[in-house]
Amino acid sequence: MSYTIEQVLIPVESGYTTAQVQIEGDTIAEIIPTTSLNAPPNLVKEGEGTTVNGENKLLLPGFVNAHTHSSEMWQRGIIPPLPLELWIAELYDFTPLEPEQVYLSALGTAVETLLSGGTSVVDHLVLIPGQEIETVAAAVRAYQEIGIRAFVGPLIQDESLSEGIPDGNAKREHENYIRSTEETLALMREVVEKFHKPEAGVNILVAPTGIQLCSDALFEGCIELSDRYNLCRHAHLLETKAQKLLAKEKYGYSAVEYLKRIGYLSDRTSLAHCVWLDDADIAILAETRATVVHNPLSNLRLGSGIAPILKYRQAGVNVTFGCDGAASNDSQDLLEAIKMGSLLHNITDLDYRHWITPRQAVKMASLGGAKGLNVADELGSLTVGKKADLVLYDLTSLSLLPRTDPIGLLVMGRPTNAIDSVWVNGERVVADGKVTRIDGDELRKELFERSQWTVNRQSEMVRKLEAHYRQVMELPE
Amino acid sequence: MSYTIEQVLIPVESGYTTAQVQIEGDTIAEIIPTTSLNAPPNLVKEGEGTTVNGENKLLLPGFVNAHTHSSEMWQRGIIPPLPLELWIAELYDFTPLEPEQVYLSALGTAVETLLSGGTSVVDHLVLIPGQEIETVAAAVRAYQEIGIRAFVGPLIQDESLSEGIPDGNAKREHENYIRSTEETLALMREVVEKFHKPEAGVNILVAPTGIQLCSDALFEGCIELSDRYNLCRHAHLLETKAQKLLAKEKYGYSAVEYLKRIGYLSDRTSLAHCVWLDDADIAILAETRATVVHNPLSNLRLGSGIAPILKYRQAGVNVTFGCDGAASNDSQDLLEAIKMGSLLHNITDLDYRHWITPRQAVKMASLGGAKGLNVADELGSLTVGKKADLVLYDLTSLSLLPRTDPIGLLVMGRPTNAIDSVWVNGERVVADGKVTRIDGDELRKELFERSQWTVNRQSEMVRKLEAHYRQVMELPE
Repeated sequence: MSYTIEQVLIPVESGYTTAQVQIEGDTIAEIIPTTSLNAPPNLVKEGEGTTVNGENKLLLPGFVNAHTHSSEMWQRGIIPPLPLELWIAELYDFTPLEPEQVYLSALGTAVETLLSGGTSVVDHLVLIPGQEIETVAAAVRAYQEIGIRAFVGPLIQDESLSEGIPDGNAKREHENYIRSTEETLALMREVVEKFHKPEAGVNILVAPTGIQLCSDALFEGCIELSDRYNLCRHAHLLETKAQKLLAKEKYGYSAVEYLKRIGYLSDRTSLAHCVWLDDADIAILAETRATVVHNPLSNLRLGSGIAPILKYRQAGVNVTFGCDGAASNDSQDLLEAIKMGSLLHNITDLDYRHWITPRQAVKMASLGGAKGLNVADELGSLTVGKKADLVLYDLTSLSLLPRTDPIGLLVMGRPTNAIDSVWVNGERVVADGKVTRIDGDELRKELFERSQWTVNRQSEMVRKLEAHYRQVMELPE
Repeated sequence: MSYTIEQVLIPVESGYTTAQVQIEGDTIAEIIPTTSLNAPPNLVKEGEGTTVNGENKLLLPGFVNAHTHSSEMWQRGIIPPLPLELWIAELYDFTPLEPEQVYLSALGTAVETLLSGGTSVVDHLVLIPGQEIETVAAAVRAYQEIGIRAFVGPLIQDESLSEGIPDGNAKREHENYIRSTEETLALMREVVEKFHKPEAGVNILVAPTGIQLCSDALFEGCIELSDRYNLCRHAHLLETKAQKLLAKEKYGYSAVEYLKRIGYLSDRTSLAHCVWLDDADIAILAETRATVVHNPLSNLRLGSGIAPILKYRQAGVNVTFGCDGAASNDSQDLLEAIKMGSLLHNITDLDYRHWITPRQAVKMASLGGAKGLNVADELGSLTVGKKADLVLYDLTSLSLLPRTDPIGLLVMGRPTNAIDSVWVNGERVVADGKVTRIDGDELRKELFERSQWTVNRQSEMVRKLEAHYRQVMELPE
């Protein structure tokens, strides 16, 4: 299939130009500026294949929703304001237990990502105990059906939830985790062999949840898998102050230093959050060329703090954006994450010359995301020869009017009904603001029927952990 | 005209109930719970007037967009990341100069406010020099046409822009402001006599821009007008660190202490921003029962800081939310302001028991807004006898699914296409997600045709002020 997008606005160094963009198969085949002084109109060719009117529309490379947990969608809106360590206890108490739910929430995550500028999603996927393979199969099926580019990192750990909270002075007994380290690594091998098909748009990542719930052996096993199968690496890193305390208890040095020593950090390693790093830690990320995935909404929602994103940028660390799971956000609107992930840092540095501009934010969300997934040569910019993962924005939406700077409006505003079309791997998966490959109304019906309005549910695990958490964090009883 | 909203979900103390809500004329005439144990179904009456199906919808009191500057809409998306003092210089350099533009941006502001849960708007309206009355007339015309409840505070000052930046050690010459204090007050009297018609949904506020650009005489004249005509009072207060420095230079004590001494603070005074107050200042706000209007988006965008909202709430200060002008946000989505204005503070206090819950946020945005405008007896809650300023949310929007806690989804999520209907003063001004009294497509066409995509415009005033600003704020040259 081929598409010709005509008369579309694209960003160039000095501003914008209109262009004719030709998609052939899965690739951006040609970009011909039509208003630039250097490209007289007669350069414009007859369009081939389907012609798309790009007039009054803006074309950008697709963004990467670089960290989420799709099945959290079932619990969005319901968990009260709590810090991560208690929030996750409630989350785990009510986690979905059917692969069909995982399928539906993966579809929902994909729809919201596509309709907010994303063409790739990194799903740090919570596995249903005893149905781990079925869980991955359900998410992969959803992403293939809807046509988003998927990076699925089964969320693995080998320590129980209570170990994620520092002990403080009280030495505690912890329950064994449900699955051994070896079984977990064997499971990952099976997942990779069954589902890792980059050419079909499905990539498996190794993704231990983080130092707070994983043994050395699990990290080492993941590195081995990553090397053997050429897989990207993902993990949470220092999301909360409690995790920083925990790392000191566990290793006697910082979590970043730990990850460096065991060899987990690399230019294909992306790390979600990175809120509590110090300057020495930042230098390690720069040196190892790891990517920071900034999730501003969940960092605020869970009270985790403000990740030092301006410092990362100054140190040359690659940064991109994620929505994080929908139970800690509580949405999958990538443009919202990009807006907040840009603006939030203006209060951390008086010198406005360091603040993130809308154009920089777009580059972080597209090329920055591609770098973190080791595909910057194939994705992340409007470049002839790269894969056609593209988003077409309708600049006549009220939310993008009056006309000023289109990218400024897109990033700093609140775009509503602004996505006209999305292509992933050359296929048009959104047209006229609607996903093309599944029935969106049917999805809403399924999500509606499998849920109930509710309030005041009680989490047994929160009740168990709260007193200890408050004590360790020096909060009044 | 009367409406019966049937089978609609409304919040009650213990959760939600379905109810039949009857609107008669401009008033909420009856609310009959239909699933509560205490209200057997036979209590439900035949609906009168137009029947609205409330099934799978949530009814809430309308919110107040409690601080904005409507004509900034013409410059949204275009001003680069700059702190307030330089941002405003660029804003003023390119400010709209035709009343027709003011009319259109007031319409745009109203549409976005209505479609994000707002039924009232406080427009701190920038006046076109020499066409001040025409400016107010244009905004008032827009609000009356579209049917939103309007509180218009003509933005007045009597000192020139350069005086808004602290002198530091360099004593500077300032230009005279274009209009004298007396002329400004005379103008305000004319505006009040011409446009202040609360019964028609148009209220005039006295609204000196703030201590940074106003003389004692201007504040005193505004107090006198407020007392004589029973007008609410509005102003900016300590938005930036520079303003805090300026107050010390100007008075030798805090800006809040100053406003108290001259008698500007009262239970009908609302103050935008309040970022840089200390504990003594907060005690004064509590004592005088003034209202804080929190504008989280612009405070981040301009790098102003995080207003100490949790402290205000603990001190008993009334707090509500505003979008602020669209050039510092760069949107008028009130639900976004409410979300960020709730979540942002979780990082300022480790104790999650102080964090703002979604239900508290809804109350702040509705009843809190009404209190700040001295109309809490008429607006701000689902109460029989109050004015019917109501918003009906469609809970089958994908963004509000799966079903969990509807208010949690609304406040912490990112509602998209979620507004079904809006009533202001009993009139249905939004139906099926569209404004009913103006042609939305025509508005978009006008905004489109009167603007141009642009980048890299240069502000002469920023160039003039920047070196001094950087010096006073101790930033490198």
